[in-house]
Amino acid sequence: MLKNAIVGQSGGPSAAINATLAGVIQGVKNGGFANKLYGAKHGIQGILEEDFVDLSAVDEDTLKRIKCSPAMALGSCRVKLPAIEDDLAPYKKIEEIFDKYDIGYFFYIGGNDSMNTVLMLDKYFKSIQKPVVCIGLPKTIDNDLCITDHTPGFGSAAKYLAYTMNEIIADTQIYKIKCVTIVEIMGRNSGWLTLAAALPRVLGGNKPDLVYLPETPFDENEFLSKINPLFEKTDNVIVAVSEGIKFADGSYVSAQKCGSADLFGHAALSGVGKYLEMLVRDKIGCKVRSIELNILQRCAYHIASESDIEESFAVGLSAADTAKKCITGVMNCIIRTGNNPYAVKFEPHPIQGIADAEKYVPLPWCDLENEQSKKEIADYILPLIQGDVEVFTDKNGLPEYFTFL
Amino acid sequence: MLKNAIVGQSGGPSAAINATLAGVIQGVKNGGFANKLYGAKHGIQGILEEDFVDLSAVDEDTLKRIKCSPAMALGSCRVKLPAIEDDLAPYKKIEEIFDKYDIGYFFYIGGNDSMNTVLMLDKYFKSIQKPVVCIGLPKTIDNDLCITDHTPGFGSAAKYLAYTMNEIIADTQIYKIKCVTIVEIMGRNSGWLTLAAALPRVLGGNKPDLVYLPETPFDENEFLSKINPLFEKTDNVIVAVSEGIKFADGSYVSAQKCGSADLFGHAALSGVGKYLEMLVRDKIGCKVRSIELNILQRCAYHIASESDIEESFAVGLSAADTAKKCITGVMNCIIRTGNNPYAVKFEPHPIQGIADAEKYVPLPWCDLENEQSKKEIADYILPLIQGDVEVFTDKNGLPEYFTFL
Repeated sequence: MLKNAIVGQSGGPSAAINATLAGVIQGVKNGGFANKLYGAKHGIQGILEEDFVDLSAVDEDTLKRIKCSPAMALGSCRVKLPAIEDDLAPYKKIEEIFDKYDIGYFFYIGGNDSMNTVLMLDKYFKSIQKPVVCIGLPKTIDNDLCITDHTPGFGSAAKYLAYTMNEIIADTQIYKIKCVTIVEIMGRNSGWLTLAAALPRVLGGNKPDLVYLPETPFDENEFLSKINPLFEKTDNVIVAVSEGIKFADGSYVSAQKCGSADLFGHAALSGVGKYLEMLVRDKIGCKVRSIELNILQRCAYHIASESDIEESFAVGLSAADTAKKCITGVMNCIIRTGNNPYAVKFEPHPIQGIADAEKYVPLPWCDLENEQSKKEIADYILPLIQGDVEVFTDKNGLPEYFTFL
Repeated sequence: MLKNAIVGQSGGPSAAINATLAGVIQGVKNGGFANKLYGAKHGIQGILEEDFVDLSAVDEDTLKRIKCSPAMALGSCRVKLPAIEDDLAPYKKIEEIFDKYDIGYFFYIGGNDSMNTVLMLDKYFKSIQKPVVCIGLPKTIDNDLCITDHTPGFGSAAKYLAYTMNEIIADTQIYKIKCVTIVEIMGRNSGWLTLAAALPRVLGGNKPDLVYLPETPFDENEFLSKINPLFEKTDNVIVAVSEGIKFADGSYVSAQKCGSADLFGHAALSGVGKYLEMLVRDKIGCKVRSIELNILQRCAYHIASESDIEESFAVGLSAADTAKKCITGVMNCIIRTGNNPYAVKFEPHPIQGIADAEKYVPLPWCDLENEQSKKEIADYILPLIQGDVEVFTDKNGLPEYFTFL
């Protein structure tokens, strides 16, 4: 009798994580190595609570709808397993539940924290010599996972950001009034998304005029000193900034206080966009606006990249193939094999070394005055944002996104 | 010898104002009543500075690109003409420039303030018995102009909001953690856009759970009293709120201070979303996030409504037809002639009575518990958000938006 398989999703949502889920469902069905495929609602939390759906029963139409929906059809969690040496109880609990449901394959789709969960479960099952195949599937708009050329979900967020920046440029250039527009983009430690928002400039345009990534220290005075010279060339200064930029001393710019206290007497964090807005208003005195793109950059499926969604699906398929070969403790990565034409392959790599590392923007790419850097950035990002996706709509013309919740 | 015509754009941008400009260009060309068509850059400001482009020279490909670009290809201004009785100088200046360029037709695309400009110029030219045809063309995402069934630009913003709300719902439902998400939507005095963001609920869903329009007074305690009961039904409470909601005393909620002072000692306005976020954090204590959709709701051409863009173009065509008939002092309106199937006609109405009035959401429509209201809202908004538009893209797959600036 074949063993069963289980899949969960974890961490923050993206436009592509459901495409990877759909790939796993399709791949397990095609592979014929597992009997049933369970979906754990809310990741590890759903496993601990035995909150499962039977994904073997998913029909073709539903599979397509899962693939074409943002966020997480199975729901997410922020649960982290303790270190095995600190607390064995949750591992024993998972072992029991896996026994009860006869699970031989565990797929987990997520970012760094989720990969750590896969790594630890793999270690646990190896330590008790139980053959449970544990496979991680990368997912994060932040693009900060190592080994994989890029992460599923990054391309769609990057496309949203490049489109949105073009639209912000169009919107803000219409007045003959000196104005600074600050666009705050996700990315706590790495600037990949802000780099994508800078594509109009990377590709030869002038905007955004200023770009700040977390990879290099932020200097407030240097920033301010650039505004007035820019106003000699343009009325419309646009600044793209990662939420996670830091001062030279390592402290987050977003950790600056917005006044002595908020409405209720709490010291309130301002967010980096609001902070720079206040700074420009006070020190330069011109019209200024900040735009926080917020969760829109990760959930706007309607402008997702076809290339991203198809690759995310393929990562799911490849993980099923890896499971069939009983390769465990790995994350299925996207490996770029060519740029002209762009081509990738999918292959498993040991999670050890991926889970605790972060991939940063190479320092030369932080310099958008450098023509060679701009060429390399374009070569890297452009293939990931190509093509439009199908959006399932209801009879009213509004998107119909799928969920098991 | 035929007279020349001139067209300008004014006020805030939208996804559809260039479609109306394209309609005027096409209509004037088709109509054969004018010699040249000038475009005034930055509206009235460009007229006063004789900053013109020759729109008669626009070829078919460019016309299509103008039609398919957000914001204002000619640029905008916030210049208001003084009352004629206060200061005649700018009127005499415009008269001189119109004489110099032999202008017999003046088209102005904009919102309430811009319609006031048309009205006053029409009065002036009538008072000096100079036959200059002055025609207003409606434009505002706010949908707050009277007589016209809806305003060009509203449909595209409404579609963006309905899509975005669906995507925010998908994004925020994935965790088993009680969370309030507050979505702040444009609309200083009228709640049309927030009503569009509420479409998922209007059409039978549960979200957004709470909807606040400027048409009815906002009660802070009543708002807070609703959160915990909602948490008994859902972990994910979504609030859609117009930027312009007011307390019962008429003061703007957004005018609440964000703390005693900002970073630099100024009393800072918080914005309604941030204010409600702080309120929920302090009084309810759950996870809470606010999202300000900002200018994205008016510039996101990639998700514009085909119905809106085509109607906006048709408004431009109809204004040229009105000019040909030498009808002056009017705004070309969209008049709905049927809902089943949806049909409209375009006709001129006197600007007097439009320029200084605002159209509000009918009070019964502010009650989303009322099934009849929901049906009426759906009947009103749904036809305006149908269909997708063409986006011109460059060789890199990024949008290529047209501008004369």
